[in-house]
Amino acid sequence: MKNYLLTPGPTPVPNEALDAMARPIIHHRTPQFQVILKEVEEGLQSVFQTKGKVLILTSSGTGAMEGAVSSLLSPGDKAICVSGGKFGERWGELCAAYGIESIPIDVEWGKAVKPEEIEKILKQQATRDKGQEIKAVYVTLCETSTGVSVDIQAIAKITKNYEAVLVVDAISALGAVPLKTDEWGIDVVVSGSQKGLMIPPGLAFVSLSDKALKLVEASKLPKYYFNFKVYKKFIDKNDTPYTPAINLIIGLNEALKIIKKDGIDDVIKRHQKHAAAVRAAIKALGLELLAPDAYSDAVTAVKSPEGIDSSKLVKIMRDTYGVAIAGGQAQLKGKIFRIATMGYITADDLKKGIETLEIVLAELGYKFEKGVGVKAFVGQV
Amino acid sequence: MKNYLLTPGPTPVPNEALDAMARPIIHHRTPQFQVILKEVEEGLQSVFQTKGKVLILTSSGTGAMEGAVSSLLSPGDKAICVSGGKFGERWGELCAAYGIESIPIDVEWGKAVKPEEIEKILKQQATRDKGQEIKAVYVTLCETSTGVSVDIQAIAKITKNYEAVLVVDAISALGAVPLKTDEWGIDVVVSGSQKGLMIPPGLAFVSLSDKALKLVEASKLPKYYFNFKVYKKFIDKNDTPYTPAINLIIGLNEALKIIKKDGIDDVIKRHQKHAAAVRAAIKALGLELLAPDAYSDAVTAVKSPEGIDSSKLVKIMRDTYGVAIAGGQAQLKGKIFRIATMGYITADDLKKGIETLEIVLAELGYKFEKGVGVKAFVGQV
Repeated sequence: MKNYLLTPGPTPVPNEALDAMARPIIHHRTPQFQVILKEVEEGLQSVFQTKGKVLILTSSGTGAMEGAVSSLLSPGDKAICVSGGKFGERWGELCAAYGIESIPIDVEWGKAVKPEEIEKILKQQATRDKGQEIKAVYVTLCETSTGVSVDIQAIAKITKNYEAVLVVDAISALGAVPLKTDEWGIDVVVSGSQKGLMIPPGLAFVSLSDKALKLVEASKLPKYYFNFKVYKKFIDKNDTPYTPAINLIIGLNEALKIIKKDGIDDVIKRHQKHAAAVRAAIKALGLELLAPDAYSDAVTAVKSPEGIDSSKLVKIMRDTYGVAIAGGQAQLKGKIFRIATMGYITADDLKKGIETLEIVLAELGYKFEKGVGVKAFVGQV
Repeated sequence: MKNYLLTPGPTPVPNEALDAMARPIIHHRTPQFQVILKEVEEGLQSVFQTKGKVLILTSSGTGAMEGAVSSLLSPGDKAICVSGGKFGERWGELCAAYGIESIPIDVEWGKAVKPEEIEKILKQQATRDKGQEIKAVYVTLCETSTGVSVDIQAIAKITKNYEAVLVVDAISALGAVPLKTDEWGIDVVVSGSQKGLMIPPGLAFVSLSDKALKLVEASKLPKYYFNFKVYKKFIDKNDTPYTPAINLIIGLNEALKIIKKDGIDDVIKRHQKHAAAVRAAIKALGLELLAPDAYSDAVTAVKSPEGIDSSKLVKIMRDTYGVAIAGGQAQLKGKIFRIATMGYITADDLKKGIETLEIVLAELGYKFEKGVGVKAFVGQV
């Protein structure tokens, strides 16, 4: 059975990257590796759309999120944590772990935060307690657990006028949806390797604006491995502190070359087309999106039809037909399924996914005209 | 030019592991991955020589070292940090980062700590300040920067009688030298993937005794990604928190199968034989070990002959002859070179290393009878 991976991380890895990672390993403090690291850094800057250096960490994306708290803030600082899903919740957990007072904005799962809600709190706090301004606003670009996309550009327009830095979890969706770090004025973008960047998990990335770098310089929370100041010092010398995940960086170089060849704008257009085609198929099948007003082009969350447990649907698709999609997490367990369109997932892979979805929906007793999903998908892609 | 990697991390990766890492990636929350994770866990327990669960972290070894501070201790705790090189120093830096008062035992670089020095401090502190006992003793099994081996068994005999847990940085040398975690009574062993375990960097490992688990339960230092309590909860369910470095874990499974097939005792005997042969070659060449009284079988540190800058020697060996060994770090920069015997470095690789060392030593004007190094090496291996 041929397997298809349509999960929102890990995503399929191109052969060029797999091959490169299978080469005999080289040492990281050598001219040979420095050439690769320099190319990777340039490739990352292009995907992050920033002129600033992008830090390269060996960890899951969560590690970089932790650094975006512990390396930016100091005891007594306040932050806004926007949450509308499992990954947004992590910002609040991270602040709590470090004793940072966080003002939560809890959005219904499946909805996007309204930028003006953030502005309201920033304004209140700025006028009320002088010297007690909010230091950081933590948001999620694409909430993987709900497939919700947040209007980062609008939020960045607001944070620009306040002391707070804007920190965006772009682990899902960097390289899949538009994110113009410098142009929009995003202070910190955190990402990971196993989504739009098309390589296996194990690397995380962070971009920092000048405003963010000032916070990094002043930060007094305890930290060591995720100390952005140290990573910045090293990447400025085209080096990494500690021993990095060498073969993942070598694989990333190949993945970034593919993005460069296609062009980041075309890569994003492809994601838009694929995701629109998936949504068309879902609509044709008479199914509902979880987030009809705020869907992301990186991953599409679909409500499971009444009486069908999405966990069962996902299990049959994977174990009987070799097509891995994702189920729901936490409060959405059993209620939704999620089809990723991120990274190296092709239109053919997605067509196979929709075909298999139709087969299994029929098996589970859902009534629909067979083939309408695939037809709608093919019509759009 | 064929390249030889004789550096103390990364070490060469067996083809079986490289091939496995180049397979199409699979999702980590699947029955397929759970089978692999279970095998990896059993393999790690066998190499760690422990019945307890071994935590699997996606990070450099330093991340696991950080967790061994932040996940074990609480504000106000005291610790002993033994340092005799660049990596031992890291324990002190980590304690400082978290505001832990550490009592340093600074050993001359090239020497091993005397276990009785540790006992002296433990005893003083235990009798002097009731309730202010030392909570942890941090030591390094093999100090990579000096090639020094520390008598962990003797230290464990001492710490057993005190409140303190014994934490061993075995990043270098786990799987290369004897380390009987349960039998000797070591509370915490920290290791990494890119040394004796023969896969690329990016994974770190931690074993915890019951005594250590109690500290983990009670620990109040801030932490999130390196929170051992969370990793323990997940590995007990054959799972990992966050998205792990999936393909490194799959590669590790293959490397552990090789160790299992050879048998851990024979693997260690092979390291002993290889390292003894390297030392014989060094002696025959009229060169001096940095640590004649405390050498490790994982990596051999050699004083560069007078008038020869070891950095230059290392550079020529690597760039002209394709043989990568390591130079000196920090205060030993230019003064020593280091030949690793860890992991998948074969006797043939090492013979090539000694041959090349002879060629470059001669080029740099060092006087010796050509071939004596290789002869001594071959005679021992």
